[in-house]
Amino acid sequence: MSDEGELRAERSAAAMWTGDAASQGLGMVLEDVGPGVARMAMTVEPRMLNGHGMCHGGFIFALADSTFAFACNSRDQRAVAQTCTITFLTPAQLGDRLTATAREVAVAGRSSLYDVRVENPAGVVAEFRGQSRSIGGAVIA
Amino acid sequence: MSDEGELRAERSAAAMWTGDAASQGLGMVLEDVGPGVARMAMTVEPRMLNGHGMCHGGFIFALADSTFAFACNSRDQRAVAQTCTITFLTPAQLGDRLTATAREVAVAGRSSLYDVRVENPAGVVAEFRGQSRSIGGAVIA
Amino acid sequence: MSDEGELRAERSAAAMWTGDAASQGLGMVLEDVGPGVARMAMTVEPRMLNGHGMCHGGFIFALADSTFAFACNSRDQRAVAQTCTITFLTPAQLGDRLTATAREVAVAGRSSLYDVRVENPAGVVAEFRGQSRSIGGAVIA
Amino acid sequence: MSDEGELRAERSAAAMWTGDAASQGLGMVLEDVGPGVARMAMTVEPRMLNGHGMCHGGFIFALADSTFAFACNSRDQRAVAQTCTITFLTPAQLGDRLTATAREVAVAGRSSLYDVRVENPAGVVAEFRGQSRSIGGAVIA
Repeated sequence: MSDEGELRAERSAAAMWTGDAASQGLGMVLEDVGPGVARMAMTVEPRMLNGHGMCHGGFIFALADSTFAFACNSRDQRAVAQTCTITFLTPAQLGDRLTATAREVAVAGRSSLYDVRVENPAGVVAEFRGQSRSIGGAVIA
Repeated sequence: MSDEGELRAERSAAAMWTGDAASQGLGMVLEDVGPGVARMAMTVEPRMLNGHGMCHGGFIFALADSTFAFACNSRDQRAVAQTCTITFLTPAQLGDRLTATAREVAVAGRSSLYDVRVENPAGVVAEFRGQSRSIGGAVIA
Repeated sequence: MSDEGELRAERSAAAMWTGDAASQGLGMVLEDVGPGVARMAMTVEPRMLNGHGMCHGGFIFALADSTFAFACNSRDQRAVAQTCTITFLTPAQLGDRLTATAREVAVAGRSSLYDVRVENPAGVVAEFRGQSRSIGGAVIA
Repeated sequence: MSDEGELRAERSAAAMWTGDAASQGLGMVLEDVGPGVARMAMTVEPRMLNGHGMCHGGFIFALADSTFAFACNSRDQRAVAQTCTITFLTPAQLGDRLTATAREVAVAGRSSLYDVRVENPAGVVAEFRGQSRSIGGAVIA
């Protein structure tokens, strides 16, 4: 990928991150971003546990969804999620460091498909697939 | 539905709610629960906004997922989410009071399918469909 | 619903049915159509059985997908399927008369969400959810 | 992968293929199979066209679903599809030679997740994701 594409991805991410109270408030870290890809991390905290004592699916989804958003906005074209599917494979526990890795799977017109894998040190926690639609306009102000 | 079923649903919900730091911490309220159904509410707070200034999809999913969990554990048989699909229809804004209504769509063996509709006062925000699997054991201690 | 809406749905369906070699070739029958709804039927034939001796999922999906198409084109606005999810609940057997019932769940801009239930005489065989997008143009020539 | 795994995959596929009237009747060809993977092909015929003059989604799904089935039964453990999601990216036209490639994405207990990409010579037609569940018993008689 070109340096230009990398630079655009980093600038788009910086513009999004500034206003992203949700991702910041959950302690997420944007570890890497490039054209069509992103990687984020988050640690499972006590406030994220559900009634079964495991990480609530909403927080696992939130991590995947943020990573998807940074990846699908990386070309400086505003895009939003339409339909997302998540399969929970193994529970995430208190203290687990979760890493989510997003990659573009396919593009067709203004729709794109992204896959995000969420892992803890023991293996795959969840697989997420999101369909985005570009809505016009740029991410970088 | 029998009074017995309603009572079991309420007791299962109470047992789950006690340990559900995630739902409590997000300000969710369990408004109603019965055999195979549940209704919860949550208000969109500043900490829930994403880089587009709208409610982050993760919190909308979390509300739907909690409501799904209370509905699919309402028969006092422990069940967990497997695959969930969410379609985002219109953005939720700061201050919106969101209501999620879950209902059992179908049961086949140990798998069940639930639909959850998330609404704000203006209309439908998202439609969620979750597949659960009962894992054995009771919810009520 | 208005008589005008019903008439438009019937005319859209007639226009689509004429060229729909796939639905005709599989022996489907369009039993009912109206604004945002449709019902079709199909019998499981020997040529539809898979290696487990049950109806191949592709034919169950095809019946649901056709019913979805007739429902989401019923307002005389050309629409195509984007993302569809199907959950198989119980197998369909040779000779089963399958009925699929589609209904509009939600509309947001040019995207619509439809649910289709596929049943045999014993109960629910599959639940299908399809997201369509209108692509401009009319169905009726 | 071991020769033993390859041999088991080929024998499982042969046992399934014998009774698979559906895949045979649609002109599918099993081009390759191995542990957790499979590749099949099918040509779009006039009988597969829908009312828009494109390949009916049911046949694209059927090709993906068959490929998924051969991949997820390749370890000689009977498995069936539970929830499948398909995203249609570009239409397939009359005469298109479609190729579907399935690969195992994740395994958790008795559930497995497979991705299937369907392509024509021009690019990606659809992306399919299927969750299977092993139901006990062997494929090879």
